[in-house]
Amino acid sequence: MEVENLYIIKIGGNVIDNPAALNSFTKDFAAIEGKKILVHGGGKIATKIGEKLGIESKYINGRRITDDDTIHLVTMVYGGLVNKQIVAQLQALQCNAIGLTGADANIIPAQKRPPVSLSVGENQALVDFGWVGDIARENLNIENLMSIIGHNFAPVFAPLTHDGQGHVLNTNADTIASSLAVGLSAFFNVRLIYCFEKKGVLENMEDENSVIRNINKEKYQQLLDGNRLFEGILPKIENAFAAIDAGVQQVLIGDAKDLLINTTNNNQGTLITQ
Amino acid sequence: MEVENLYIIKIGGNVIDNPAALNSFTKDFAAIEGKKILVHGGGKIATKIGEKLGIESKYINGRRITDDDTIHLVTMVYGGLVNKQIVAQLQALQCNAIGLTGADANIIPAQKRPPVSLSVGENQALVDFGWVGDIARENLNIENLMSIIGHNFAPVFAPLTHDGQGHVLNTNADTIASSLAVGLSAFFNVRLIYCFEKKGVLENMEDENSVIRNINKEKYQQLLDGNRLFEGILPKIENAFAAIDAGVQQVLIGDAKDLLINTTNNNQGTLITQ
Repeated sequence: MEVENLYIIKIGGNVIDNPAALNSFTKDFAAIEGKKILVHGGGKIATKIGEKLGIESKYINGRRITDDDTIHLVTMVYGGLVNKQIVAQLQALQCNAIGLTGADANIIPAQKRPPVSLSVGENQALVDFGWVGDIARENLNIENLMSIIGHNFAPVFAPLTHDGQGHVLNTNADTIASSLAVGLSAFFNVRLIYCFEKKGVLENMEDENSVIRNINKEKYQQLLDGNRLFEGILPKIENAFAAIDAGVQQVLIGDAKDLLINTTNNNQGTLITQ
Repeated sequence: MEVENLYIIKIGGNVIDNPAALNSFTKDFAAIEGKKILVHGGGKIATKIGEKLGIESKYINGRRITDDDTIHLVTMVYGGLVNKQIVAQLQALQCNAIGLTGADANIIPAQKRPPVSLSVGENQALVDFGWVGDIARENLNIENLMSIIGHNFAPVFAPLTHDGQGHVLNTNADTIASSLAVGLSAFFNVRLIYCFEKKGVLENMEDENSVIRNINKEKYQQLLDGNRLFEGILPKIENAFAAIDAGVQQVLIGDAKDLLINTTNNNQGTLITQ
């Protein structure tokens, strides 16, 4: 029996914060045939609303601290405003979207991150990042998600999980997307698509059209050996291979504008495979 | 074949705004055996957050106007903050809650209320209530909700619907609860439970324990003829009979504190039947 395709697509702030881009994206997402899941990040709207509410954004070493006020803020904005607006837009396009967080149907239980020891300035400090959730993939309730996908609903995930003790947790959207992709790769032929601000992995940073269409491990080693990749892209490729090593069939890195073509074999973005 | 029981429970501000009451309620809700749905209202938290955001609450004849800012506010607060906190709490109690709005899985499409002609002060005015949704029961997608209930998830509905054109709409929680109850009464033996601030319909307003345990149409007529009901309760009873006339098997009006006993035949609240 042929294994069915499933597309898991992650979008971030550059789509969410731009109504025209979001509009265009939802049209393309709705047009994808077959099974699909959307995972959205937060965008700048949470910071804007937080400022109006007098909630200060706190960062240590560039990483946000999710204190009590902040988890309430992101639960409202990511789980409510952003998520339900996307769902309503997709419904208007005849895409049967269902908005979820990891708390819903207990799909993504997570663990509150314990305080971590970090170099802060010249000192070593124990930093508590607050209501941040780390996912242990083996705890995902994939069967609950399968029952939702099985009814041809298109899940739309906000970047939120829960600790199983009554608290919502803030979790990185990339991590949610890859965790779901790993869990579902046992049942589907998964293409995990990360939308970002470039068309793909570029051979030449100055040339937007120098996308490397396919990277497998051998090719990656060649690119690394030749010192031909800019540093910023390395974590994305490493994450892609981590997902692939955990079972995900394909990872694609590309521009949200190319979403539809990137669900085909004529991908314009970079397709990463074993 | 025996028809399965389904409990649809509506809570409002007096539970949502009181953490101890909400805590106690979620424990009881989680303890209900079998199929169940929660519908929550908004509570005062939206007004509080709206004030901080500089969103003015506008009312005409005591009814709220849902302008652009207000629909964003309630989408955040009802659909995000309140809904997901309840879901996370229920999950901590091993109740497999799934938070939904009427936009999710297109369960409750609604129509934006057209401007209505109203007496405002001494004048007649055409009043636009904004992003408010009225439900046409025949448009409900009960089969989508059935597939979610069928997996033993406990849906938790925020008082939001959508217009099918990309907009979230503000809809009265009582109306959502009764509409779902009517739609589901074809498949289940439904008891629709409205939690309010009294133990039930009282024979004597001065005596909290003078609850009338059972009201059917005949009894209701007797009570009306005897002028034995206080006016404030009449709309609730009328709504209950409207639901019953549309197919709902039982409606119960009672105190959230009595939720568990009110799911039994030893109800402490008022059970309304044909």
